[in-house]
Amino acid sequence: MNLILLSKDDFIDSKKCVCLTGRRHKHIREILKVSVGDQLCVGLLNGKIGKGRVFTINDKTVEMEVSLKSNPPEPVPITLILALPRPIVLNRILAHVTALGIKKIFLIQSNRVEKSYWKSPVLGKESIKDQFILGLEQAKDTILPQVSYRLKFKSFVEDELPQLIKGTRAFLADPQAKESAPSSNATPATLVIGPEGGFIPFEIELLKKSGCKSVHFGKRILRVETAVIAVIARLIP
Amino acid sequence: MNLILLSKDDFIDSKKCVCLTGRRHKHIREILKVSVGDQLCVGLLNGKIGKGRVFTINDKTVEMEVSLKSNPPEPVPITLILALPRPIVLNRILAHVTALGIKKIFLIQSNRVEKSYWKSPVLGKESIKDQFILGLEQAKDTILPQVSYRLKFKSFVEDELPQLIKGTRAFLADPQAKESAPSSNATPATLVIGPEGGFIPFEIELLKKSGCKSVHFGKRILRVETAVIAVIARLIP
Repeated sequence: MNLILLSKDDFIDSKKCVCLTGRRHKHIREILKVSVGDQLCVGLLNGKIGKGRVFTINDKTVEMEVSLKSNPPEPVPITLILALPRPIVLNRILAHVTALGIKKIFLIQSNRVEKSYWKSPVLGKESIKDQFILGLEQAKDTILPQVSYRLKFKSFVEDELPQLIKGTRAFLADPQAKESAPSSNATPATLVIGPEGGFIPFEIELLKKSGCKSVHFGKRILRVETAVIAVIARLIP
Repeated sequence: MNLILLSKDDFIDSKKCVCLTGRRHKHIREILKVSVGDQLCVGLLNGKIGKGRVFTINDKTVEMEVSLKSNPPEPVPITLILALPRPIVLNRILAHVTALGIKKIFLIQSNRVEKSYWKSPVLGKESIKDQFILGLEQAKDTILPQVSYRLKFKSFVEDELPQLIKGTRAFLADPQAKESAPSSNATPATLVIGPEGGFIPFEIELLKKSGCKSVHFGKRILRVETAVIAVIARLIP
């Protein structure tokens, strides 16, 4: 937790003082071990970043006077389109990509995505938000990513994707591709990553037809978790 | 398991037939669901890659006739020097970087590495090998990475590192650095990554003095797990 993320509900008087309990209180008290007068890096969810000066701390709550003046880091202009991974992996990936600065995520169905994954509690609104918050706290950011779900692969790719990738360079991660993922690029990008086992040929063809260029990342087949981070790293300016 | 990794002990008659039990048998039978006559991608640990044709499979063993002709993928010429992470994170990182093709890893002590980490069973020879094997199986590779341990930071950095980085471009991952990590580079490289919380200024200075150039990866502070993968991705040709 490199930044304490605040929500509007934390404020106890207009815009200056917050009172925190629970997980953040525990972290501030037990990990950061702050005393009255200490300053912490804080940020308002979807808002600005600044400092919080502790004026009360006890075994239940911590109170800070906050001043929020800086903007959060610039969002990374990469849209991530990800075949829904196994729930436990999804959790880690959401935190990873949030930490990397991604703000736009599509979780999609594809042939090798087990239908049961869609019923996982990990996809619950609060569970997803928890992972985003872990990523934001890690990266000193405040802007929540937006996640969308698309259960119909074909209609998503045919009807929605061409519009979505307009103005971006669109890549499909594919171990069989002839070109490697570009190593640096400042333009906005769209990235499509398949499920464990990969997209089936039909899906790959469809993605290509819809404007995605297939690129590989060396000869090795990477775990979803690895590939997501690795390919994003190559696309970030 | 995109490749079934074989060891010399698996061979039941000179160089052609193997008999597998345990984890690999279970995977072949329950996940891959192969039948007699089916072919699988196999590789000999630290050796060649090829095909295995199943000729017997029952509820205890699977027997294959193997033919090993291809070389494993080229190693990635990046040396990873990593401040020992938390044991559970180390496990995942070892599998990640092995899958990415890294063959040379140094795990080092630094100021913010908890001494207790060095006593974790995760650092046992067999446990480390298990993670490497997961990475190799994932990436269709056979060459085990080599891991070395350095408990004396200063003497490692001052006495050994200058020699180690000779002929490579050496980078230190540092959120405060002025230059970003290079996006693509075919030359051999050395990468130093700090512990959670980062290297302390003294350590950073020492690393710089010893020939490491500090580079950042955007303004965000990444988790070790994320940073390792991301920065490696930028260095891989």
